[in-house]
Amino acid sequence: MTQRVVVVGGDAGGMSAAAQLRRLRPDPDDVSIVALERQRWTSYSACGIPYLVAGDVEDADELVARSPEEHRRRGIDVRTRTECTAIDLGAGHVVTRTEDGATARIGFDELVIATGATPMRPDLPGIQSALGVHTIDDGLRVIEGLGAVADGGRAVVVGGGYVGVEMAEALLRRGLSVTQISRSVEPMASLDPDMGALVHEAMTGLGIDVRTGESVVGIETDGDGRARRVVTDNGWYDTDIVVLGIGVRPATTLAAEAGLPLGELGGLLTDDRQAVQDGVWAAGDCTQVHHRISGRSVHIALGTHANKQGRVAGTNLGGGSITFPGVVGTAITKVCDLEIARTGLREAEARALGYDVVTAVRESTSRSGYFPGAAPIVVKVIAENGSGRLLGVQIVGHADSAKRIDSAALALWNRMTARELAMADLAYAPPFSPVWDPVQIAARALADRLPG
Amino acid sequence: MTQRVVVVGGDAGGMSAAAQLRRLRPDPDDVSIVALERQRWTSYSACGIPYLVAGDVEDADELVARSPEEHRRRGIDVRTRTECTAIDLGAGHVVTRTEDGATARIGFDELVIATGATPMRPDLPGIQSALGVHTIDDGLRVIEGLGAVADGGRAVVVGGGYVGVEMAEALLRRGLSVTQISRSVEPMASLDPDMGALVHEAMTGLGIDVRTGESVVGIETDGDGRARRVVTDNGWYDTDIVVLGIGVRPATTLAAEAGLPLGELGGLLTDDRQAVQDGVWAAGDCTQVHHRISGRSVHIALGTHANKQGRVAGTNLGGGSITFPGVVGTAITKVCDLEIARTGLREAEARALGYDVVTAVRESTSRSGYFPGAAPIVVKVIAENGSGRLLGVQIVGHADSAKRIDSAALALWNRMTARELAMADLAYAPPFSPVWDPVQIAARALADRLPG
Repeated sequence: MTQRVVVVGGDAGGMSAAAQLRRLRPDPDDVSIVALERQRWTSYSACGIPYLVAGDVEDADELVARSPEEHRRRGIDVRTRTECTAIDLGAGHVVTRTEDGATARIGFDELVIATGATPMRPDLPGIQSALGVHTIDDGLRVIEGLGAVADGGRAVVVGGGYVGVEMAEALLRRGLSVTQISRSVEPMASLDPDMGALVHEAMTGLGIDVRTGESVVGIETDGDGRARRVVTDNGWYDTDIVVLGIGVRPATTLAAEAGLPLGELGGLLTDDRQAVQDGVWAAGDCTQVHHRISGRSVHIALGTHANKQGRVAGTNLGGGSITFPGVVGTAITKVCDLEIARTGLREAEARALGYDVVTAVRESTSRSGYFPGAAPIVVKVIAENGSGRLLGVQIVGHADSAKRIDSAALALWNRMTARELAMADLAYAPPFSPVWDPVQIAARALADRLPG
Repeated sequence: MTQRVVVVGGDAGGMSAAAQLRRLRPDPDDVSIVALERQRWTSYSACGIPYLVAGDVEDADELVARSPEEHRRRGIDVRTRTECTAIDLGAGHVVTRTEDGATARIGFDELVIATGATPMRPDLPGIQSALGVHTIDDGLRVIEGLGAVADGGRAVVVGGGYVGVEMAEALLRRGLSVTQISRSVEPMASLDPDMGALVHEAMTGLGIDVRTGESVVGIETDGDGRARRVVTDNGWYDTDIVVLGIGVRPATTLAAEAGLPLGELGGLLTDDRQAVQDGVWAAGDCTQVHHRISGRSVHIALGTHANKQGRVAGTNLGGGSITFPGVVGTAITKVCDLEIARTGLREAEARALGYDVVTAVRESTSRSGYFPGAAPIVVKVIAENGSGRLLGVQIVGHADSAKRIDSAALALWNRMTARELAMADLAYAPPFSPVWDPVQIAARALADRLPG
């Protein structure tokens, strides 16, 4: 008997699961794999869309890690432009609909839900004129929209998070005057405000008009439905294009309708093998994940987690047994040459969890101070008072700064103290680091503040 | 009663100890600190000397993190051009000699030995014509020597380790034809030969004549004592300058003469507070350190360890109590745009320690493959079979490659398995990494080879 596996969603989580399962169980008579994808692309880098708009990436196809055809050649029955409209867990089938309206039922023994996330879109007047940047098609629509904007045109980016700052860069590099509007005290609210202020300052220095603490209340459009003005609770900004990047929520309507329980944040809850329940698996942006520092179940939509979770689901489906160990909240981005990274808890989050918090912020350089190209880097370290256990680290700097967050992430992962991190054997040579790594300089400063 | 502290050696280890002690005990009537240094510099970056020769660093003074005058202003009695010629532990004094031959005795209650390392110099005919690159004065002599070499002149670098490859780059960039000679199978013998072969290939591509498996048997000189030809067991190489970088040994003659016990590798043995015995401390290249992976006492001359050990010694001398936790063998360098890093054990070392070893080598890219500037990076992972516990990682790649060794170093530090590292929450965004970090790609490949 062939085991029938249906995967709902053809991006990182779903196709990682499908590909790994096929790797472990290559015989299609042993395991059949059907993957359903609404769009025409599979396994694409949503994180790359701002760089497509910026022009770093010339062709949308470059963002596709593995096309439907490539998956098919590997024995996965990928059905693009095919939406899954219902899951019947009792009957063991999904209902699909293709673009021409044809519906079908596909039976399954095992189901992988990888429906991703849905960008948030507040219900405001004129909001339909704001362009999203969630899918490749979204990105292509922004590029198309830019074609109608004259040189020296204006853009408003709504949202100050990762997508917001990346799109601000993209539009700036496209030659537009960019205004970024966010409700938070500083851009990059995943950083503490003191570190966000450094981002604010640098973005302003790049020529971006950064507006914080403002809420958009509507968008005025012209007769063609194009955005012309963004109105906030503090004023208004004339514009030629509006891009929306204010976050996502798990796309779990289908799962909820199928009767699967959701977490507080709307994501599917899985065990560490990525199983939702017997015969049902989930991976990627539609799930909540375990945060190893806060102990909470959180929603963090990131391609790297989706890939790992998909691989875990696929391995376990294929007869192996591995686990997804959770996250520590690591993230990284850049705005032009300003690099930004964070891991763990923000100061306020740590306090809200009841920690007595101690922090240190230190500016140093990415290389030995005397080495050409040494760039400023600011590192903030957050730890529990007394024990010195690391709770969070944030980095804002220039070239070769942000990827250092990995040291901090692994320190948090392994419950190291600030002193332990400061004394650990990180790589030093003048072209790569000062004699104490910048992360260690901040950790050392923090350790010096601890009692004892 | 003033506590009298004498520090022998004014570079990283000694001056870190002195500075930290002064920070904790600012009153000179409470603690007096005398620091003795043979040369005219203190706290300088020996690691920066190749970049001084290359021209990256314009002035030797830039390599000095803190000058004797700066230390003196902070209340440390630095005596440069003053050699310590004897330590009398019983009497509690050191004997010094200045350049004019004047000798003196300085009493101490606590002694810090930070005498550094001595470059190896084999006893071969003509060896006196080979220039070292251990001190700033050495570096200045090389630059002076280059002044006498005509454009398009030739250089031979003896030694294929860190200093050897860095000096090969420096001389190449000075416009010389460079031949590098080493006895090992491949350059960078701190890597496994398969990874060293990548370095060999890249250096050859840069135009460096890389000779491996050859031993120098002598250097022929002209009437002025200048090197003209290097003779090996395999042939001879005409040259205009010879630079020697074949490693160092602990400079512990003084300590041995004082009756202090040395380790098998000739270094001082300290406890983890950097104490040699009651009232005697040591830090830096004159000491052996605990290798956390092999469990052995090793000699690794690196400024970053010296700084940390000095700080530990200074803190404990000042009434605090912290420890130096040992090393995992992390090191990093570059040859032009080729980056090289390693941590932990080589494959052969691991086998020699009795480990059943499994390895994986994977080539990936430093950024998402589609992102501009994505550069090739090869990562080798070495782990214990069965458990999957990581034992070593090596990286050879281009831009933004080598500092990733820090993730591996902290994984080894915390005794993580290959699978744990592969699944850990490292930072991903297209400008910084593929969706699985290159180190994780290799770790994942290794994990897939493990039983179970």
